[in-house]
Amino acid sequence: MTAQRENAQTFRALQAPGKLLILPNAWDAASARAAEDAGAAAIATSSAAVAWSHGYPDGEMLPAATLIAAVKEIVRVVKVPVSADGEGGYSADPAKAASFVAALIDSGAAGINLEDGSAPPELLAAKIKAIKSAMKAKDVDVFINARADVYLCNQVPDDAKLAEAIRRGNLYREAGADGLFVPALTELAGIREVVRAVDLPFNSLIQKALPPIAELKAAGVRRVSAGAGISRAAYGAAMRATKMLLEEGKYDAIFASSGDCPEFNKLFG
Amino acid sequence: MTAQRENAQTFRALQAPGKLLILPNAWDAASARAAEDAGAAAIATSSAAVAWSHGYPDGEMLPAATLIAAVKEIVRVVKVPVSADGEGGYSADPAKAASFVAALIDSGAAGINLEDGSAPPELLAAKIKAIKSAMKAKDVDVFINARADVYLCNQVPDDAKLAEAIRRGNLYREAGADGLFVPALTELAGIREVVRAVDLPFNSLIQKALPPIAELKAAGVRRVSAGAGISRAAYGAAMRATKMLLEEGKYDAIFASSGDCPEFNKLFG
Repeated sequence: MTAQRENAQTFRALQAPGKLLILPNAWDAASARAAEDAGAAAIATSSAAVAWSHGYPDGEMLPAATLIAAVKEIVRVVKVPVSADGEGGYSADPAKAASFVAALIDSGAAGINLEDGSAPPELLAAKIKAIKSAMKAKDVDVFINARADVYLCNQVPDDAKLAEAIRRGNLYREAGADGLFVPALTELAGIREVVRAVDLPFNSLIQKALPPIAELKAAGVRRVSAGAGISRAAYGAAMRATKMLLEEGKYDAIFASSGDCPEFNKLFG
Repeated sequence: MTAQRENAQTFRALQAPGKLLILPNAWDAASARAAEDAGAAAIATSSAAVAWSHGYPDGEMLPAATLIAAVKEIVRVVKVPVSADGEGGYSADPAKAASFVAALIDSGAAGINLEDGSAPPELLAAKIKAIKSAMKAKDVDVFINARADVYLCNQVPDDAKLAEAIRRGNLYREAGADGLFVPALTELAGIREVVRAVDLPFNSLIQKALPPIAELKAAGVRRVSAGAGISRAAYGAAMRATKMLLEEGKYDAIFASSGDCPEFNKLFG
């Protein structure tokens, strides 16, 4: 079995019934290696955080080649499976989205996130089908986490959201998706209904309003991811230390609780 | 006048007598753009932080091509001059070091840091000469900040350090250096002596033991840089948020004082 296939299966097993995988999303090799060192069983990237780190806003503005190179750098330094956030697949053409995903898999990704965003759910389903078909032809395995943006992008009236999330979940499952991600759905009752109605591992996004991990697990959630959260904490800390240095001439925030150089060098030793 | 030459002159002017340039060193486009947004008049990279972010320990382990691409990404998103940490020039051959620096300049760098490290000071002087000669032939301008590692690497007995730092400073000045960086020299008396004896802008590294900015300025220091400090604060914050999430299942550290998504997207809008 190839390392890629093994990683995909490990990643799938981490989201098996009864399990809950916590993903402290990374954006570069350092954050990925640090997350693995802290005990993360898998690494997922955040498209927003990867884009920011390379100087782009979120939303497929980051060149695909730069994203692929970033995934390669992460895969190089961690042993755990890596799932890459592929946004909408960088194309409205399912065949092109499949080529893009193939490049991510070639870079060593074991899983991907693909979102519907503002596009029709039927298009994301078509992309999932095209990707699964292309992967099958190449005898590789990939965990596709399908993201339904019903709540995140406020796409339908409030009282229609739950039914639409379930409809999309089953559409994506039938297309071959391995997991369902519904960011911004934070009510346990709603989560329980989606978990019951869609036979896929359910992924919650960490937000202030998200219930504690134990309650999510009891509700059947199998994956909880931090999105851009960890990167926002990191760049937020950099911004505070920078402002204190430039505006007050103080070094305190730099040393408040930073790691030391030998510790960082050791991570990549 | 080319943008590169203009940037180099702006960068030089920021370190003119009586001025003090504070550099909150960056490691990627996000940290650079955030530093500029916070008021940094120039951006300098930290070799250690850039290496970590791409998954390598410090010490010319990061492939030169990756370093050059990282500098390009930073230059793309900021308007202020960018100085790239070139470690020892990625070669013990002055001509090869000059080619490496030429590639950094082509990427838009207005300045570079070059260190002696464990190599003889005469070799760094030869590299500086080779670079300045190559730059002159191409009619480009670059601010070379020469780093003497006498204190940082504890290279001579304590009572010989000050004299050795001054000797190296003048050696590098004669070779064409534009600035002198003596990290880990934190005593004001010693700093004053080097400032008096070497006619170059003096650069201090921010460490816990470094005196306040105002005292450094009074001692004649013209540049204070954070080295890997800001990145350590950033990745340290990521590590803490990750550990709290994985070990305690808590989201608090993620949201404690992180920036928000619109704020980050706006930086690159």
